Amino acid sequence: MRHESLQQQKRIEGVLAPVVTPFRRDLAPDPDRFLRHCRWLMKSGCAGLAVFGTNSEANSMSVEEKLELLEALVEGGMPAAVLMPGTGHCALSDSVKMTREAVRMGCGGVLMLPPFYYKGVSDEGLYRNFAEVIERVGDDRLRLYLYHIPPVSQIPLSLDLIEKLISKFPGIVAGVKDSSGDWQNTEAMLERFKDRGFDVFAGSEVFLLDNMRGGGKGCITATGNINPGPIHDVFRNWRAPDADQRQAAITATRKIVQKQPMIPALKAAIAHFGRDAGWKTVRPPLTELTEAQERTLIEELKAVGFSMPGLAA
Amino acid sequence: MRHESLQQQKRIEGVLAPVVTPFRRDLAPDPDRFLRHCRWLMKSGCAGLAVFGTNSEANSMSVEEKLELLEALVEGGMPAAVLMPGTGHCALSDSVKMTREAVRMGCGGVLMLPPFYYKGVSDEGLYRNFAEVIERVGDDRLRLYLYHIPPVSQIPLSLDLIEKLISKFPGIVAGVKDSSGDWQNTEAMLERFKDRGFDVFAGSEVFLLDNMRGGGKGCITATGNINPGPIHDVFRNWRAPDADQRQAAITATRKIVQKQPMIPALKAAIAHFGRDAGWKTVRPPLTELTEAQERTLIEELKAVGFSMPGLAA
Repeated sequence: MRHESLQQQKRIEGVLAPVVTPFRRDLAPDPDRFLRHCRWLMKSGCAGLAVFGTNSEANSMSVEEKLELLEALVEGGMPAAVLMPGTGHCALSDSVKMTREAVRMGCGGVLMLPPFYYKGVSDEGLYRNFAEVIERVGDDRLRLYLYHIPPVSQIPLSLDLIEKLISKFPGIVAGVKDSSGDWQNTEAMLERFKDRGFDVFAGSEVFLLDNMRGGGKGCITATGNINPGPIHDVFRNWRAPDADQRQAAITATRKIVQKQPMIPALKAAIAHFGRDAGWKTVRPPLTELTEAQERTLIEELKAVGFSMPGLAA
Repeated sequence: MRHESLQQQKRIEGVLAPVVTPFRRDLAPDPDRFLRHCRWLMKSGCAGLAVFGTNSEANSMSVEEKLELLEALVEGGMPAAVLMPGTGHCALSDSVKMTREAVRMGCGGVLMLPPFYYKGVSDEGLYRNFAEVIERVGDDRLRLYLYHIPPVSQIPLSLDLIEKLISKFPGIVAGVKDSSGDWQNTEAMLERFKDRGFDVFAGSEVFLLDNMRGGGKGCITATGNINPGPIHDVFRNWRAPDADQRQAAITATRKIVQKQPMIPALKAAIAHFGRDAGWKTVRPPLTELTEAQERTLIEELKAVGFSMPGLAA
């Protein structure tokens, strides 16, 4: 019964935030701040939450820490259908465990990194990794979104690899987040897999309008953490006459943020506009913004009229 | 009591193998084959076992899987003092957990990768990572060997970072494995830290003789898995008149092996010379050698008179 109803569940489309993870002073994950921020994101324009992404410092946490946070969200009333947790690890066993739990909880999808320690691995090796995870999880409810982020993972997912995975696991291999930063690659994915039920998400809102025009389904973007409303407006109004103007505005905000190291910048913005300095903490190997970086970020954001409505309690 | 006796324990010097990890057909780690191979290595010339290194497919296993294997070794009678497990992970919490367990078991040292997901991180961020692990483990028995392997981790450990760690944690930050493949870097480490109780291990036996002549303590090398005897002979006889000839012979064997993908090649050699085909299995994202690669490897090894005495049961 549950199986059938979930099978019919509509796929997530729109703007997803790779939710930044709050840490306490002792570097332990903070489920209360996490839940509060997730609630704010969902009421501010996000269609879904790609928790445990690159911007979540996901790989700086153990599987157990992530599962505890995921449970805290669901227990806190967040509908599992809007969650697309990152579940890809270097270790096959970790990827299986975390994906299995995400499906068990009813998550709308999972966003899966390839194993990223060994470099220069073959498509066959990567295929076997994803296939093993899918087969070991063994549940038709799984919606797997591939996570292509070669600038960080150093492990690109080729079009041929994606083709092979879609063909072998149709309906389960459901889409991709393209964080290559290379629009031509996103275009190639849109073109090649357009009739395959394969949902392409841009990895930055900079490409949101282009992605919608090309048949994509939205974006999963770092700055979705702080600017979800205006980004959602572009998604919702992508056919409107003023879409390019709206796109230019969210791109401008993005450019301000990405002048600074992205993850501590997002946290600094949340700390400032939410009046909660505790948000600034990052786990090693990351470091907080310097005072000068923080000042520049906040001043430049204010100068373009940036705000985070309803964030401060 | 135990504390004192371990404090006085002599540090590991000589040849260490980053022990390859056997997997069963279902890809589960195989503790029996693992223990057998570790015993063969220790009676064949290895001074220590750097289990859970790059060549061990360590990052393809969960913390739990590795801890089970470590316990199987100790329960199987392997002295913990010869073990130098890899305990560095992307997640601070994983590194702390595994390092703590290794120290609790009495391991001679740990070999620690930096967190390797985020690229271009600062020395300050890396310093905080290692410092957090050391402080959270909080045990004077810890002997931490830094693992410098930028070709794979993409995260170099600078000389300044090492200097800062040695200064802050003298006696605990005990050495390095230099797998940069850049002899000038190894030389720079030997020179800069020569009076600091900092033990430099070459990351390949190709540099063993140079390393010994420069004041180093041995090597931690992939091919230690299959050629420990002759490599140990170079270590033991590095002052002998024929040392260069011996070095040339082990270098020649290394060159044969590294024509093939290293990890499956080591496993193929163990499978062949140990008459145990089960050894060939690797975890994704790695793949086994092709038949042609395997044939070339074995033929070329036989052509130089290579053998693994006492391996076949």
